[in-house]
Amino acid sequence: MNSAHTIGIIGGGQLARMLYEASIGLDLEIKLLAEGPEVSAARVVHEVTVGDYTDPQVVTDFAAGIDVLTFDHEHVPTSLLTKLEAAGLSVRPGPAALVHAQDKALMRARLAGELGLPAPRWRVCRDAEALRALGEEIGWPLIAKESRGGYDGHGVWKIEGAEQCEEPFAQSLEESAGEKVEIVGEEFVDFARELSVIVARNPHGECVSYPVSETVQEHGICVETTTPAPGLDPARAAQIQRLGRRIAAELGVVGLLAVELMERRDGEVVVNELAMRPHNTGHWSIDGAVTSQFENHLRAVAGLPLGDPSARQPWCTMRNVLGGSRDDLTAELATVGRDGGLKVQFYGKSIRPGRKVGHVTTYGDDLADVQGRARAAAAYLMGLAG
Amino acid sequence: MNSAHTIGIIGGGQLARMLYEASIGLDLEIKLLAEGPEVSAARVVHEVTVGDYTDPQVVTDFAAGIDVLTFDHEHVPTSLLTKLEAAGLSVRPGPAALVHAQDKALMRARLAGELGLPAPRWRVCRDAEALRALGEEIGWPLIAKESRGGYDGHGVWKIEGAEQCEEPFAQSLEESAGEKVEIVGEEFVDFARELSVIVARNPHGECVSYPVSETVQEHGICVETTTPAPGLDPARAAQIQRLGRRIAAELGVVGLLAVELMERRDGEVVVNELAMRPHNTGHWSIDGAVTSQFENHLRAVAGLPLGDPSARQPWCTMRNVLGGSRDDLTAELATVGRDGGLKVQFYGKSIRPGRKVGHVTTYGDDLADVQGRARAAAAYLMGLAG
Repeated sequence: MNSAHTIGIIGGGQLARMLYEASIGLDLEIKLLAEGPEVSAARVVHEVTVGDYTDPQVVTDFAAGIDVLTFDHEHVPTSLLTKLEAAGLSVRPGPAALVHAQDKALMRARLAGELGLPAPRWRVCRDAEALRALGEEIGWPLIAKESRGGYDGHGVWKIEGAEQCEEPFAQSLEESAGEKVEIVGEEFVDFARELSVIVARNPHGECVSYPVSETVQEHGICVETTTPAPGLDPARAAQIQRLGRRIAAELGVVGLLAVELMERRDGEVVVNELAMRPHNTGHWSIDGAVTSQFENHLRAVAGLPLGDPSARQPWCTMRNVLGGSRDDLTAELATVGRDGGLKVQFYGKSIRPGRKVGHVTTYGDDLADVQGRARAAAAYLMGLAG
Repeated sequence: MNSAHTIGIIGGGQLARMLYEASIGLDLEIKLLAEGPEVSAARVVHEVTVGDYTDPQVVTDFAAGIDVLTFDHEHVPTSLLTKLEAAGLSVRPGPAALVHAQDKALMRARLAGELGLPAPRWRVCRDAEALRALGEEIGWPLIAKESRGGYDGHGVWKIEGAEQCEEPFAQSLEESAGEKVEIVGEEFVDFARELSVIVARNPHGECVSYPVSETVQEHGICVETTTPAPGLDPARAAQIQRLGRRIAAELGVVGLLAVELMERRDGEVVVNELAMRPHNTGHWSIDGAVTSQFENHLRAVAGLPLGDPSARQPWCTMRNVLGGSRDDLTAELATVGRDGGLKVQFYGKSIRPGRKVGHVTTYGDDLADVQGRARAAAAYLMGLAG
């Protein structure tokens, strides 16, 4: 089994920052291509190149010094990655897999269409008329999404009726990652809750699933996860873990795959979104699992055996810290740090309202205590309490 | 409570490297003064100054850009630290405390002499004649130690009888950290085993003890720890934890204090050595405790509340990886990584025989399994098996 020791990461956000943390003990060499010298990961990584990841020359030069290329985000043009791969670079995940996390229309066509996996009813809609026809066929409300480039609730509309169908088309649909953006119309799933499963897969086909998490979104942004998902039937949890591994294998993912799901009121689940990188719903694993998602992403892309994804305790809650009125999170440890079991990850980002600037994690035997401590600490760090 | 955000670390070994890992989530800014550009921590830290830590100008310049100064090792001249502290820099641990980890004669005088804590019988010996007199008084064998500068078995002699008393004086006793080196003669303690307790103390006097570890030394080098120490009476463990906290408070330690002890065959313990920095016998805490020793050292020196030092599972074993016939530890994860619960820390150091180049950690419910897995993995990584 050959392993790759120099890993290039494109994107300098908090995911790259936490990948870097995980790389140190494994003694993997990380090179970072960052958007600027002061972004989250660029502040801590030893070897940083500042450059534009959409510029083929910048990315090609960066790729010359590495064994494997991986990502903090999904915005690198697919066509550029395809060229790098054709030139012999290990791109992990490879563009043929990654495109399913970049393009929601392709993802739905592959997962729901070809593989028959559970999904909301959906259709690519060329214009408002097509979206209206979909709504009349399957009922209102609908969800409309940009096929590419959306994140944290951006590029998503809830369409209550025929009169709102112009909205997604009112703006110009700009290219994202060098590709055309379309509008995907989907059945509005009146879900009981949202779930997530993280899977890691290495190039030798070894594949492991983390426990299933319950995730809470507000305004389209993940604010909390609890792992394992409280009250989830063990057979259903195992089914979801298998589903994650099946998608990873079918798409040929190398690295992490996050599958976000919606649980219908009857307990059935449908796939909502995919990501192929460390995911917000897997941050709990830093403190809560034997092997964090960040370590397993690195092991996977480096071609190494995967670490055990098991939870280390009955319950683990991760709560995001969004930018609020506190401007120095580390100083606020003087207050929230009095809970000696509270684990914090601050991302070194300047504080802007609503921006993800850190997260806190708690774990233990008592679900209400675990959730309560995480919520209290996050609220304090956001300036909402204390 | 004021916290300090920019922490300067003198020394670029693996302890600084693991401190750096722990600093990222806390968003503490680290500046490193390293011996060279390729030493263990200098390979991963973002902001590195290369320079000689015994040069007052180098250290003074380095100190200009930081809030707090702390250490990877104990070799910075006490006199230099005293000057920096007098000039207003926060030196943590401060030189008045640190000198007890630098100078074994001072340590014995303070702990055994002034505080009456349990210690082997001891005396500073000016020459071979004085050492011989000590042996005739308390019996052979004796241990002779250089008061300063020894490490990993260097600067320590076992003196079997009067005819060997010249040995420690046969070499010239060079200065260490700018101070005179003397020979301390000590009773040879025929111990049942060695123990260690790590304590963290912040400048506000908050002080926490980690569980007591059993440590195994070979040729003067720590090779293994198991935590908690198997079979240790809970009352004795609590007494050792109190002893650690008392020493930290009496000496005014800010940061970590490691107390190495010898357990006599009747169960009584005596203090062997002190260190005031992250310690090899505390490496288990990265994977085995709620808060690692590295995070708690940073919290302490930054003036933040301390994290919970509790163990997360019944047993945890750390085994050192010493340089052997394997020259690429990360590649060897292809083999040892098949134990998905094995945690590794590789230090990014070139492999030289007997050099500490990494460690592995295992944990779980079954002591024999936990120890067996760590020993097997370390042996493989040292080229002694497989």
